Amino acid sequence: MTETSKSPLTGNLYEIPTLREGDRDVIEEFLTRNDEKPVVVVQGLGFVGSVMSLVCANAISADYAVVGVDLPSRESFWKIGSFREGILPVISTDPKVSAFFENARSQGNHLATFDNFVYSVADFVIVDVNLDVSKNSSKEGELINFDVDLGAFEKAIKTIADFCKPGVLIIVETTVPPGTCENVILPIMTKGFASRGFSKDAFKIGHSYERVMPGPNYIDSIQNFYRVYSGINQESADATEVFLRSIISTDNYPLTRLKNTNSTEMAKVLENSYRAMNIAFMVEWSRFAEEAKVDLYEVVNAIRMRDTHKNMMLPGIGVGGYCLTKDPLLASWSRQKIFNSKHSLSQSEQGVRINDQMPFFAYEFLLQKLNSLGRVMKGLKVLLLGVSYRGDVGDTRYSPVELFCKLLISAESKVYAHDYFVKYWEETSISVDNDIQSALDSDFDILVFTTLHSGYRSNRYLMETLERKSGLVVFDTIGLMTGDELEKIKCKHHLLILGNGD
Amino acid sequence: MTETSKSPLTGNLYEIPTLREGDRDVIEEFLTRNDEKPVVVVQGLGFVGSVMSLVCANAISADYAVVGVDLPSRESFWKIGSFREGILPVISTDPKVSAFFENARSQGNHLATFDNFVYSVADFVIVDVNLDVSKNSSKEGELINFDVDLGAFEKAIKTIADFCKPGVLIIVETTVPPGTCENVILPIMTKGFASRGFSKDAFKIGHSYERVMPGPNYIDSIQNFYRVYSGINQESADATEVFLRSIISTDNYPLTRLKNTNSTEMAKVLENSYRAMNIAFMVEWSRFAEEAKVDLYEVVNAIRMRDTHKNMMLPGIGVGGYCLTKDPLLASWSRQKIFNSKHSLSQSEQGVRINDQMPFFAYEFLLQKLNSLGRVMKGLKVLLLGVSYRGDVGDTRYSPVELFCKLLISAESKVYAHDYFVKYWEETSISVDNDIQSALDSDFDILVFTTLHSGYRSNRYLMETLERKSGLVVFDTIGLMTGDELEKIKCKHHLLILGNGD
Repeated sequence: MTETSKSPLTGNLYEIPTLREGDRDVIEEFLTRNDEKPVVVVQGLGFVGSVMSLVCANAISADYAVVGVDLPSRESFWKIGSFREGILPVISTDPKVSAFFENARSQGNHLATFDNFVYSVADFVIVDVNLDVSKNSSKEGELINFDVDLGAFEKAIKTIADFCKPGVLIIVETTVPPGTCENVILPIMTKGFASRGFSKDAFKIGHSYERVMPGPNYIDSIQNFYRVYSGINQESADATEVFLRSIISTDNYPLTRLKNTNSTEMAKVLENSYRAMNIAFMVEWSRFAEEAKVDLYEVVNAIRMRDTHKNMMLPGIGVGGYCLTKDPLLASWSRQKIFNSKHSLSQSEQGVRINDQMPFFAYEFLLQKLNSLGRVMKGLKVLLLGVSYRGDVGDTRYSPVELFCKLLISAESKVYAHDYFVKYWEETSISVDNDIQSALDSDFDILVFTTLHSGYRSNRYLMETLERKSGLVVFDTIGLMTGDELEKIKCKHHLLILGNGD
Repeated sequence: MTETSKSPLTGNLYEIPTLREGDRDVIEEFLTRNDEKPVVVVQGLGFVGSVMSLVCANAISADYAVVGVDLPSRESFWKIGSFREGILPVISTDPKVSAFFENARSQGNHLATFDNFVYSVADFVIVDVNLDVSKNSSKEGELINFDVDLGAFEKAIKTIADFCKPGVLIIVETTVPPGTCENVILPIMTKGFASRGFSKDAFKIGHSYERVMPGPNYIDSIQNFYRVYSGINQESADATEVFLRSIISTDNYPLTRLKNTNSTEMAKVLENSYRAMNIAFMVEWSRFAEEAKVDLYEVVNAIRMRDTHKNMMLPGIGVGGYCLTKDPLLASWSRQKIFNSKHSLSQSEQGVRINDQMPFFAYEFLLQKLNSLGRVMKGLKVLLLGVSYRGDVGDTRYSPVELFCKLLISAESKVYAHDYFVKYWEETSISVDNDIQSALDSDFDILVFTTLHSGYRSNRYLMETLERKSGLVVFDTIGLMTGDELEKIKCKHHLLILGNGD
């Protein structure tokens, strides 16, 4: 029986080819068409790799033949199928993304495949595969323990080691535990090349982590943004620099070279740990603000006037996405397992531990307020506005709304959701309406703002609905409503605002 | 016998007058000279009050008669004596400070006194007295427990309540536990005024915390900087706003009014807790960087290219000064004692706990490196460059250099110190040389950079000394030396750099 892979974006089904069939003819035809162009293979077609492949195909000062590679699996093949049909495997509000895709299609210098044959013709391989942390958490979201499984990542590197030709430059963009290039990738490459009779000087390895932000500046977060890079040796660093200059506006966003790959690997997990910790820091304060009847949004905005305090975070429902929820753990794991320290990065781990529980705190807050109104969760109809982990993005990976939603369901409330960008919420069984009017026309007792999509801001239909209905519980977990809006509706509804003293 | 108060800046002795003598004649003569001018009393002539009194005497859009008040005690009277002799009781590299003082002296609208009589003529009282946290710490600096003693602060407020005339506006600048204006100051004022037959509407209370930075921008940190303010009622907030507009460039630095005094009180301790926590966060990472042989300064500077990460801190010897070392504790105390929460602000407390131990970590680092060189601390001569808690400032309050120095002494090394601004290091018995050449000409085995005074940066005599001598241990705890400088001297000395992998 033929296996299929289903796109969560469109619902389209794609038949997964068997490896035996291969894709060599397609690749060779593509190469003939793109004769003489250096070949860039992007390994992994997720949120980073998909768009990275478009940026390479639209390089600023080079003309590359770009091939995106992913696995012929149920989870991944739909991305290849989509690309080939002319459908992007990511949803984006950034018009540059589709413009770049259209341009690559008309130039004919972009291909998606599953066939490892392509590595043998690659001049550059950009590693954008995932490296996951598996967490074991309580149903309130509390992290009990975690582990880093390098297996899939090592396998991806081994493919490169087994297929690539001498002279290849591998640029690792994946967020890895510090020490990975030197201690994991280099040995695999050396062994693979040696087994094929090549010397260990026959490849170069650079590390330059991405700072991709899916959303309205998706392309610019690669093409027009600062980059840090390094190499396992001088030659690798130099070659990485040359490649980065060909795809990034380095005149406006100068590159920073660090001394070794440990340093750039550490930079990435440090910058995300910094952010995670700064979010976690506000959790206690938002509870203190509740107790002191202080509007923490107002306070934080006042403090942010200071340049030195601009990065202070606001209270919210939680932290999601692929990076902040795991990168501090990658770092702590590395310290202990790669650098054999007796110590973890306990504060950074604690940041993740606190952030993971934020949706539970928001749920508890709602529960307490309901109880004080003499009501119970059971049987109430709840409309969630937004399921993405971040505003104006269609990305539910590790969305804090997920735990919040599951807690509501286990309290036997009935949950509906709206999101502008998410059609199928894979992580839950909740159906997601993409039409805000129809969502608001439904019957609900509690309205919860869960994602900061700009469509919700000053939304006329939303305000009209709130002015028409009465007796709702309106729970703003993300500081979306303005003071004026709150003023307008506060006599008709019971307003709850996280970190606001209400 | 007459008691005296000694200036730590000049060594001058001032006879402390008895309260019976009073100062009324001087005050009345001052008022006659400044007829019709509204009277501003600044309570407390420390690092904030002294300079605040000068800013008020040089108000942008008002003409005030300004009286600074402090206690006729051994610890404080020298400030009054100094002011009267024409000597500022603070050392500053900011030329505006002495210009403002000269101007006030020539205008004759600035006076310092100890006589509470002055409160009875005050239109405005600015509260700049200290509110201290007493810490009980181990000799390694680890915080065991702490307490907030409101006693002295309450006494200062009681003086206002007992002497001030109806109509007075009290503006609290002191950093207080959130809730203090409403729960501590207001009751004292109400009681004091009631006992004298005045109503509780006869006074106004505003809260507007200072963001004073002793150093090269001392005056501007008051006159040209953002302010947050509030009042115990609308009238108080309005009056506070009017006063602040008269002394601050609010066109360039707009004021922010918050809803109540709890909010502004929380804003102050939150902004300092944020900073303390961000410093503490880097401690673990700098140890991780050591283990991974990564230069954390280089990494942090690379990350700081991002606007969202500009506030990331660098590793260092520790945190000092009057604010960051206690404000998170004030907040945590308030949560529990004023707002009766079962919870502390554990993360913020943890920030202080970690920061307090940073000098011990730096000392341990030095010790370990010495041991690995086969040497012991005992008998070695150590020169510390800088004893202030902050660069270009003559302020040793809670300087991290203090614990570092004490640990060196208890290991029986011989410690000398240089500082450009500190003459007497009250907290230790160490003599401080103010002349960098003579300090460098002395005999030492270990040179430690402990304060980031700009005089040490690219100091030619310092570099020449290091190029001339050999076999020193040079320990940079604050990232002062440039890569080029390190290159130049590394063959002659053993270099240690905190958070650098060396």
